[in-house]
Amino acid sequence: MPELSVNPQRLWSDHMRMAEIGPSPEGGSNRPALSALDAEARAMLAAWCEPLALAEERDALGNTFYRRAGRDARPAIAFGSHLDTVPTGGRFDGVSGVLAGLEVMRVLHQARITTSAPLELVNWTNEEGTRFRPAMMGSRVHAGDMTLQQALAVRDDAGTSVAEALAEHRLAGPNPPGPRDWAAFLELHIEQGPVLETTGRDIGIVTGTVQARYFQIVVTGAPSHAGPMTMERRRDSLAAAAELVLAVERIGIAGEPGGRSSTTWITNSPNARGAVANITRLHSDVRHEDPARAAAMQAELIAAAAEIATRRQLAIDIDPYTTFGPVRFDTAAAAALRDAAAARQMTTRDMLAVAGHDAVMAALVCPAAMLFIPSVGGISHNPGEYSTPQHVANGAQVLLDAVLRLAA
Amino acid sequence: MPELSVNPQRLWSDHMRMAEIGPSPEGGSNRPALSALDAEARAMLAAWCEPLALAEERDALGNTFYRRAGRDARPAIAFGSHLDTVPTGGRFDGVSGVLAGLEVMRVLHQARITTSAPLELVNWTNEEGTRFRPAMMGSRVHAGDMTLQQALAVRDDAGTSVAEALAEHRLAGPNPPGPRDWAAFLELHIEQGPVLETTGRDIGIVTGTVQARYFQIVVTGAPSHAGPMTMERRRDSLAAAAELVLAVERIGIAGEPGGRSSTTWITNSPNARGAVANITRLHSDVRHEDPARAAAMQAELIAAAAEIATRRQLAIDIDPYTTFGPVRFDTAAAAALRDAAAARQMTTRDMLAVAGHDAVMAALVCPAAMLFIPSVGGISHNPGEYSTPQHVANGAQVLLDAVLRLAA
Repeated sequence: MPELSVNPQRLWSDHMRMAEIGPSPEGGSNRPALSALDAEARAMLAAWCEPLALAEERDALGNTFYRRAGRDARPAIAFGSHLDTVPTGGRFDGVSGVLAGLEVMRVLHQARITTSAPLELVNWTNEEGTRFRPAMMGSRVHAGDMTLQQALAVRDDAGTSVAEALAEHRLAGPNPPGPRDWAAFLELHIEQGPVLETTGRDIGIVTGTVQARYFQIVVTGAPSHAGPMTMERRRDSLAAAAELVLAVERIGIAGEPGGRSSTTWITNSPNARGAVANITRLHSDVRHEDPARAAAMQAELIAAAAEIATRRQLAIDIDPYTTFGPVRFDTAAAAALRDAAAARQMTTRDMLAVAGHDAVMAALVCPAAMLFIPSVGGISHNPGEYSTPQHVANGAQVLLDAVLRLAA
Repeated sequence: MPELSVNPQRLWSDHMRMAEIGPSPEGGSNRPALSALDAEARAMLAAWCEPLALAEERDALGNTFYRRAGRDARPAIAFGSHLDTVPTGGRFDGVSGVLAGLEVMRVLHQARITTSAPLELVNWTNEEGTRFRPAMMGSRVHAGDMTLQQALAVRDDAGTSVAEALAEHRLAGPNPPGPRDWAAFLELHIEQGPVLETTGRDIGIVTGTVQARYFQIVVTGAPSHAGPMTMERRRDSLAAAAELVLAVERIGIAGEPGGRSSTTWITNSPNARGAVANITRLHSDVRHEDPARAAAMQAELIAAAAEIATRRQLAIDIDPYTTFGPVRFDTAAAAALRDAAAARQMTTRDMLAVAGHDAVMAALVCPAAMLFIPSVGGISHNPGEYSTPQHVANGAQVLLDAVLRLAA
């Protein structure tokens, strides 16, 4: 097989064209899962795949698979990521993994090469989980970590269910979600953190993930007037929640470098300018590469909440509603990526993913691995998210070479 | 003039009937200003006034005046309060002042007494200021502290303007808002705090108000991924806002007993479960009976925000958009209330109002005074807000007697 090269200009141009769907005022992307914009992005991907003689299959959650026939009756090599973004998203998170996979298909098509194993390009539904919780919904149901029925019933803040959103945009296919005939699933993704840039490496070989634990928290105090009620008699749920936000932050700082934490979401009731709040809800998470430390961080969070609740004489309820990881990716699949990079004289670094990714879910039901490309400034989930054309091309080249190593 | 008595049963029954309009699940009231429920409450008041031979006048902001003719060409004695509530409101805040005023009109009507001065029962528009900012909007425009045009342009969080809400429910009248021919404005109100109860007094004679200063605050950080971004590189607007919430609370605790503070309102963006927040908005206030101390509390708040912004490398913008007080109420009007209570063997306590009230605005353009009745447990802006039938009757009796002293 001749040495094949990706086309950096084409790949970059695909990124810029995809970013025209749901552009944010600050230059990023805002393409919520199962929205009209997501449907438009999917339609563009389908149009790009059409000349490549791929067979499209969709499952009932909208996960989409573009299959390229192989020479032999072998399990397929799959690769891909997601096209949905967070509201303050960038142009690379998820998108680069899908478009690098598209580039693999295009290079092979142009070179008229048929691999021994079939290939599949995957676009997973609702990886971000901002509109519909939880994150990695499509790959999660695929892997059996959540039932299809549970996922279809999830509602966004406006009351629309996943089932309704799928129907509105005709995104559901006939297949029941579930494991496919895959020998491996590879995912290219931007790092979303600063490690590759600060250590000067070209490619991250993701050997697994941290453990992440997610919490929905409800603080229940008592409403009162913001003026006459004396300070010590207040049961101010917002002030208690503020203490908890800072406790979560301290737990993450103490957990570094292997750990992180965050509180990203808050609602407050009555949220009225003259009334001390009585119900404040938070969403928080803790993460650590050592699962025992992650569990300890959760215990610290629960202890901090108990102390705040006792001292302030109000109630704090913590629902540890989901987790991911730790996952250890397939060593052979990771080796294929590492070897492919080395053969191209690219420098690599083995690392753990701190965020959830579809490959984390896929790893539950097939051998999986990931490669990271650098994020300039470590910035992600931000309109300023950026990877250079060279970063993107490097990653796609390694993906192509690894696919050929596994499927040839 | 014979000694006249209010009818406690009738007055209590009016309260309970009014509470049927916009009942909250927890037994309180939720009757936002200029909503359909507010319109329904106003219609019920109008129906109750109809048999009393009162002339209704409305101004362009919906402030409503029920005028009872006097024997002589003298300035009127006015009294009243408001029927709107906060979302977690009780059955007495504002309502008791309007219904006690209605009771005054009923007693005089039944006794066929015409006072020398005309009387006016007032229902002010949007005292609470939760749906449309600022609070005391109707009395504020009446007093010239805000123009009618400014008030009509204010929009609620759903984008509806005051002008649109007035038009939707046909609540605007033909009169330009502004001072009327009043010799005095008296307002009965629940205390909304614990002082009368803990000191065992029947009636509070409100001699003035604290100074209150209100702030809209915007914290601007930078969005990033909640996982991979290392803790020290985050510019987390929610965490910074949490520090500010606690700083405001500390400033209020240090300011007691004469001072208070609160942060009641928060919005967070993108408020997405996978993204560190970059824009968080707060509404806070500081209050103190000594205006110099209130100014010092504001300075402390600004200094705390500056320290947080510098340390966290983000921006905090503070808009001190409005204030009220200090107001000193009219000593003659207050004396009429104090003497009326004493003549009924009720115990009184002179005190300052810590919350804003319509009388605070009315005091800018006519002699004004207030009386407080006890709030059980000091609870207000809470479905559990409660004053006993005896508290309410005592207050209405003092109001009636004081009105007769001033208008006879």
